[in-house]
Amino acid sequence: MPIMTASDLEHFLETDFPQALHMGCKVLHVDNKSIEVQMETKDRHLRPGGTVSGPTMMELADCTMYLLLLAQIGPVALAVTTNLNISFLRKPTPGNLRACGTLLKKGKTLATGDILIYSGDQEEPVAQVTTTYSIPPKP
Amino acid sequence: MPIMTASDLEHFLETDFPQALHMGCKVLHVDNKSIEVQMETKDRHLRPGGTVSGPTMMELADCTMYLLLLAQIGPVALAVTTNLNISFLRKPTPGNLRACGTLLKKGKTLATGDILIYSGDQEEPVAQVTTTYSIPPKP
Amino acid sequence: MPIMTASDLEHFLETDFPQALHMGCKVLHVDNKSIEVQMETKDRHLRPGGTVSGPTMMELADCTMYLLLLAQIGPVALAVTTNLNISFLRKPTPGNLRACGTLLKKGKTLATGDILIYSGDQEEPVAQVTTTYSIPPKP
Amino acid sequence: MPIMTASDLEHFLETDFPQALHMGCKVLHVDNKSIEVQMETKDRHLRPGGTVSGPTMMELADCTMYLLLLAQIGPVALAVTTNLNISFLRKPTPGNLRACGTLLKKGKTLATGDILIYSGDQEEPVAQVTTTYSIPPKP
Repeated sequence: MPIMTASDLEHFLETDFPQALHMGCKVLHVDNKSIEVQMETKDRHLRPGGTVSGPTMMELADCTMYLLLLAQIGPVALAVTTNLNISFLRKPTPGNLRACGTLLKKGKTLATGDILIYSGDQEEPVAQVTTTYSIPPKP
Repeated sequence: MPIMTASDLEHFLETDFPQALHMGCKVLHVDNKSIEVQMETKDRHLRPGGTVSGPTMMELADCTMYLLLLAQIGPVALAVTTNLNISFLRKPTPGNLRACGTLLKKGKTLATGDILIYSGDQEEPVAQVTTTYSIPPKP
Repeated sequence: MPIMTASDLEHFLETDFPQALHMGCKVLHVDNKSIEVQMETKDRHLRPGGTVSGPTMMELADCTMYLLLLAQIGPVALAVTTNLNISFLRKPTPGNLRACGTLLKKGKTLATGDILIYSGDQEEPVAQVTTTYSIPPKP
Repeated sequence: MPIMTASDLEHFLETDFPQALHMGCKVLHVDNKSIEVQMETKDRHLRPGGTVSGPTMMELADCTMYLLLLAQIGPVALAVTTNLNISFLRKPTPGNLRACGTLLKKGKTLATGDILIYSGDQEEPVAQVTTTYSIPPKP
């Protein structure tokens, strides 16, 4: 079982991470190695033609990995991204995004996750992200 | 000489890419293989402690590569990012960001660039990005 | 169903790709979106302490994606890697490697795959790779 | 000034890293933030048509970063790659490879470098690599 539940994570967003809340992120599910986060896309996330912008997907992926990690190690606000690699696979349709994250490694100082992003009703992922976070040493 | 000058690019942002304008991006220099873009950071780009957020740097890098590519091939609005890899190197200080982009390759269908991001007065880069854009075939 | 079966791929390695054969690669399974490739590690692949070297895993990942792609598009010897990103997760134990590849996208000009590498009897992956191949236009 | 000179590094290769020696690597220059490594390509590094294989370039990049890091921190054999991202830019011509590495960050636990690989007499780079090493804590 993870240390933080979906509602613990949502509460943490409200108190400590207003940007993610502002993004419209909602934790649909979390367990000890995966997470599902939904993001409501708004006008400011769209490009001409109604497609969701690349930076919006990067922000969702970064937030998803952060929440997946916090769920395992508790509210360590100081965990920071060291690397993020994103491959854009298909044009997203307008509508909400959904990020499915899997924890590949939780080491003492580094954690790595794989995140697939889905758009609206499309069955195939619109982007794949691999990202590594650095975990600060316990004081 | 590039096809589009710094002021051509700024004009393109105004007419075709309001998000980049909204980001506060300004083209300081462009030539046939490099570009320098400045971004004014605002409250919404900051994390607690005054540091600039990771997604803000990703957005700046993506915009910088797009402008560097457009300068070479003209205003092809349909060029899209296929891959972006970012390494976070140091905590940015509050203040403006500056992105220095170098074109590593301009092929017929793919273009790749290397971008270093600097923050405020820090001498060392805060992030390094390598990114590839797909260039649509001429109609 | 893929265009090439596991034994078609093995035959192609013998006739057109002696390096992969020299690597000791064997296709355990292939279908229209995934592949499993086993590689027998030899002395030249090991580092002091018996761990498999990083470049060996990169070579296996590259070969796995090539075979996964060929299975879908037929023996197009000219497909080339444009990008490969590898995250090393755990120290491999001595023994064979196994690569499980999933096709994330098969476009007209680009194909992207996700590959997890497993070592010996370890349950958790030792490395994760995301890689993109460029597919040459049909003559 | 770096802790290890070019000839210290070559000696280390001979005594502790026979694979790199087997690769035919030679340190042309090293200072406190950059390195230049030459690699003699042999038949086993070539693909049909005489082009140097992708995994050969990955191996050279990995070795170059390792040597650049060791030059700064001394012969810590346990430093390990955590991430490597390579973009293939052009087809290499037959002939030697040359890797030019720049240290982007040398932190307490992580070091990141940028490496450009050149081939034969080609003026433009054939590949760009960004890679991060994890530095083991001092005992």
